[in-house]
Amino acid sequence: MRAWTHGFTVSFMTRTHLTPDHHKKRLQRLVEKLEELNLETFLVFKSTNIFYLTGLSFIPTERPIILIIHKGEVSFFVPSLEIDHVEHQVPFVENVYSYFEFPDEQHPMQHLRRILLKELALSPGRVASEAPGAPSYWGYKGESLEDVTGLKFNLLPETVMDMRVIKEPEEIELMKESAKWADRAHKYLQELTEVGANEIDVTIKASTMGSHDMVTELGDDYHPTGFSMFPAIALYRGQIGPNSFFPHALSRGLVFSKGDTLVTGASSDVYGVHSELERTMFMGDPSRRQKELFEAMMAAQNAALETAGPGVYCSDVDRASRDAFKKHGVSNLVRHHTGHGLGMEGHERPFLDIGSEDVLEPGMIFSCEPGIYERGLGGFRHSDTFVVTEDGIEVLTKYPRDIESLIIN
Amino acid sequence: MRAWTHGFTVSFMTRTHLTPDHHKKRLQRLVEKLEELNLETFLVFKSTNIFYLTGLSFIPTERPIILIIHKGEVSFFVPSLEIDHVEHQVPFVENVYSYFEFPDEQHPMQHLRRILLKELALSPGRVASEAPGAPSYWGYKGESLEDVTGLKFNLLPETVMDMRVIKEPEEIELMKESAKWADRAHKYLQELTEVGANEIDVTIKASTMGSHDMVTELGDDYHPTGFSMFPAIALYRGQIGPNSFFPHALSRGLVFSKGDTLVTGASSDVYGVHSELERTMFMGDPSRRQKELFEAMMAAQNAALETAGPGVYCSDVDRASRDAFKKHGVSNLVRHHTGHGLGMEGHERPFLDIGSEDVLEPGMIFSCEPGIYERGLGGFRHSDTFVVTEDGIEVLTKYPRDIESLIIN
Repeated sequence: MRAWTHGFTVSFMTRTHLTPDHHKKRLQRLVEKLEELNLETFLVFKSTNIFYLTGLSFIPTERPIILIIHKGEVSFFVPSLEIDHVEHQVPFVENVYSYFEFPDEQHPMQHLRRILLKELALSPGRVASEAPGAPSYWGYKGESLEDVTGLKFNLLPETVMDMRVIKEPEEIELMKESAKWADRAHKYLQELTEVGANEIDVTIKASTMGSHDMVTELGDDYHPTGFSMFPAIALYRGQIGPNSFFPHALSRGLVFSKGDTLVTGASSDVYGVHSELERTMFMGDPSRRQKELFEAMMAAQNAALETAGPGVYCSDVDRASRDAFKKHGVSNLVRHHTGHGLGMEGHERPFLDIGSEDVLEPGMIFSCEPGIYERGLGGFRHSDTFVVTEDGIEVLTKYPRDIESLIIN
Repeated sequence: MRAWTHGFTVSFMTRTHLTPDHHKKRLQRLVEKLEELNLETFLVFKSTNIFYLTGLSFIPTERPIILIIHKGEVSFFVPSLEIDHVEHQVPFVENVYSYFEFPDEQHPMQHLRRILLKELALSPGRVASEAPGAPSYWGYKGESLEDVTGLKFNLLPETVMDMRVIKEPEEIELMKESAKWADRAHKYLQELTEVGANEIDVTIKASTMGSHDMVTELGDDYHPTGFSMFPAIALYRGQIGPNSFFPHALSRGLVFSKGDTLVTGASSDVYGVHSELERTMFMGDPSRRQKELFEAMMAAQNAALETAGPGVYCSDVDRASRDAFKKHGVSNLVRHHTGHGLGMEGHERPFLDIGSEDVLEPGMIFSCEPGIYERGLGGFRHSDTFVVTEDGIEVLTKYPRDIESLIIN
């Protein structure tokens, strides 16, 4: 069982990970923003934001982990079980402050109080935080930063997310790589799907095969962050036959039957970045109604993709797919907007939604997935990942979209 | 590929799921609590709490989903893509109120305002909520309930969690079942582990085999909730050789070598309930130091398990394992408390921690996992799941704990 063993090839490619220098540049941009606001200190709580800024991945638990950016330097406040882990992962860390445990005899916030007021001697009026205090997660309870320190913290909950909305060229490379392995895993999913098979069985097998390909073919270029059990996934999530009528169905151990409409999903984790690929497929030749609804869905997705581009309102992209559905007489089957931002989380702002006031800008990445749902028959939704470029868009997921390619016989 | 196909056996066993009647009893208990507080209305936002009370499982997104308990009746406020899903899953639902989308041209909270003030005509002073408003998740932003409705909501963030701390007999059965499949998957993990294998490969294979057993052997008794891709998992999470020094290491695609200390993990999802099983294992015969530290860890776990029981302080259980570590001269290698509550989330309160003021009560379920960590050598931690009974405790994970059973040659 020597499969997946790393070889000894040295690689200078970075399409599968980011370097500490890259994180330092992000931090520098954040520090410049803070300086513009005349702020000296910023506390970050959200694990994806901490990973985005420093490359530190960790398991969030009841024990608060806080990134402290102070006078341009990077420090952490962590429980004792993460001290060495932080030093191991973040080469440019300045200080790792710690507390033993939560709840412990002295609450972590009492340690934080001492560090913020004594060791760092924060300047009143020049301190900011992503949240009023550490989030209540897995049983954590604690006072707010203001109650603990007596200082007023400027709340900047969106500052890091604002940075994350526009993807850097290096991040777009990660997303392209993610789309590539989503496509591969989906190929296995389609191949394994047959009448009588169970969705859970097919999901696990396809994800195993896609992950195996990804890890072996990338070799030393594979840099897992520990966020995902499967490097690549391709799955059914209960959207099988009549159950695919539920846009957010959940895996129920369903078995494929002739005539089923299927909606799939696939992605892969490339240094915390996730693409999105979904396909509508049919078990056997589709009926007239299945074909009609498939065509309406394709028309809506095409309309949205043709409308999208730099300077275009997100609302106009949603309007384009709605108009196409209207032309096909299926507006009553629509249950959700056209798409959402993509990056490190499952969905991110902005949204391709008639209510959005955002404008598409180069570097933004979206899912495009207008869908329609007919009771008794099922769901009709493709999802593709696209990036906004200087002069248009580029669709990153390359899996075939046409009906002939998606019929399973 | 007919494996995992469900048969036609009708089963009346409920050790693998809960019934709508069970959820109705939970709701009744909650309604009684609300009446004691002279409250008429309670809004629940947290997805695990909604599942606990109603059996509704769903994918949380940017679109708020709210359980509304009003005058003893159960209603939901959901986006259009979940309307039919709710009716399908919750047979006793009274009303499914909905909005189309987020952000949409009218914000969901404007729809909620109308429903709460006009349709339900909430009584000022008799309304409560789990949180000030819907959580900022995946890009959602919105005003607080108070800002939207003008009503003061009593905040009861812990009321449902207070119910969840003491497990009902039916829930203890789910946990026993979960422990059984964790044990099974772990057996495969140990069998597949060998010098030169990659942790990701072994993790996926063991989880696939354990899940396959669980789904086929349970047959119609298998009731997936859609929360987990693998019904059963057994994994390495980077705690291999020197890297096992990090108590919360993350999967890095490491390869097993002779002499490695390993720390594993296993669980299974039985109707949303998760047990916890971890074992320290050795690649080949352990060194004198590995044996010493293993023995210290076993002494600490034994001390904690012997101390635990109804009426005992959580702090005293932690103190017992700390005392054992002290006797072995390894207090300096301790990085965390002895354990945490278990149920539907990874960790839950209460904690087996010297700072806890909680007392163990019959029906509480905990992990017992005192650990020590030596730089360069690795981590030493077993984790077992136990339930507090009327007259002691019962350990639910049955996997061998002794060193001889955990050496891989």
